[in-house]
Amino acid sequence: MSTIDSSSSMAGQRGPTEHGVRDQIVDAAREHFSRFGYGKTTVADLAKAIGFSKAYIYKFFDSKQAIGQAICTQTLEQVFAGGTAGLVEGKSASDKLRRFFNGIVTASAELFFEDKMLYDIAAHAAEERWPSVIAYMERAEETLKAIILAGREAGEFERKTPIDETCEAILLAMQSFMNPLMLKHNLEGLPEDPAKVINLVLRSLAP
Amino acid sequence: MSTIDSSSSMAGQRGPTEHGVRDQIVDAAREHFSRFGYGKTTVADLAKAIGFSKAYIYKFFDSKQAIGQAICTQTLEQVFAGGTAGLVEGKSASDKLRRFFNGIVTASAELFFEDKMLYDIAAHAAEERWPSVIAYMERAEETLKAIILAGREAGEFERKTPIDETCEAILLAMQSFMNPLMLKHNLEGLPEDPAKVINLVLRSLAP
Repeated sequence: MSTIDSSSSMAGQRGPTEHGVRDQIVDAAREHFSRFGYGKTTVADLAKAIGFSKAYIYKFFDSKQAIGQAICTQTLEQVFAGGTAGLVEGKSASDKLRRFFNGIVTASAELFFEDKMLYDIAAHAAEERWPSVIAYMERAEETLKAIILAGREAGEFERKTPIDETCEAILLAMQSFMNPLMLKHNLEGLPEDPAKVINLVLRSLAP
Repeated sequence: MSTIDSSSSMAGQRGPTEHGVRDQIVDAAREHFSRFGYGKTTVADLAKAIGFSKAYIYKFFDSKQAIGQAICTQTLEQVFAGGTAGLVEGKSASDKLRRFFNGIVTASAELFFEDKMLYDIAAHAAEERWPSVIAYMERAEETLKAIILAGREAGEFERKTPIDETCEAILLAMQSFMNPLMLKHNLEGLPEDPAKVINLVLRSLAP
């Protein structure tokens, strides 16, 4: 799986890029945040728990948020991978669009709501529009655009509406199942409710 | 303006229905909650502030939530009225649909986000699915259904999709601008973002 956006996933990171210690810190932070929560933990708590000095952690990450950002990037890569995993098997553009959103919603529900820590980080990220979230949304829009353009090419979708308008509106209509802050209030209706909106979206794309 | 649903707006209320004291308590509670917040206030605080005994308030409302429910019903009536106010001037079913959602979103943004107390009550109401919220959603669905049926009748909208499926999907696509818990994260994008989703909805209704 490729990196969502190396510049955004690297935000606030220091020192040599290819460094095993960086991964070690992120892994240890995941575990620590999972047990004690992201919000209340400080870099000092984390350093103590991992057995590194605070100064040593600051060699690699300039803040707790930079570590959160790295965890967020990893998680959003998994969500995006959930969306794209079934695309090759999609038999038509409509089928691909369905698979893409189903995959994203399923992965989001699993990742963000089975581990409270990941939800907390994602909530911070969505609220404060971290670069990893913006990069993820751009990537989702690109993939959606490619699916729709292929559908227009094949005569499966209408071609009148400007493509960017189409994509933006679809992402807005689907946001209550994609944005963890909103998905939180929609978990009960999975998977039927997003499927109903996807059907509406497909009707809106009809030529 | 008619009452959304008299049985739901009356939930938890006691004593004779047409009683000026009831309104007096609700008005005083609005003012008190506005200044001190809904969450933390108790019926005892409220009684003290209004200058009534707790026992006297309990003659009319069996809990703080019953008072919150009355305030919530009033507010949702205003939101609904915002949605229906411009309907008669709608020149087509599409125009009516646009006016309906624009009105609801505008009134929701004004009411829920200009007075934190109303947001707090609406957030409790949405989270706990108070009867007033369910009644409001049912009423919104009925109005939407009437608009769409008229549009189908006039040949303006497609007739293949079962009407209930159509209405439910539209309300789900629009929920991030209607549900205060989600609208909270979408205020920056008003009024353009809901307009984009309404355009998508109208494309989905095309015959």
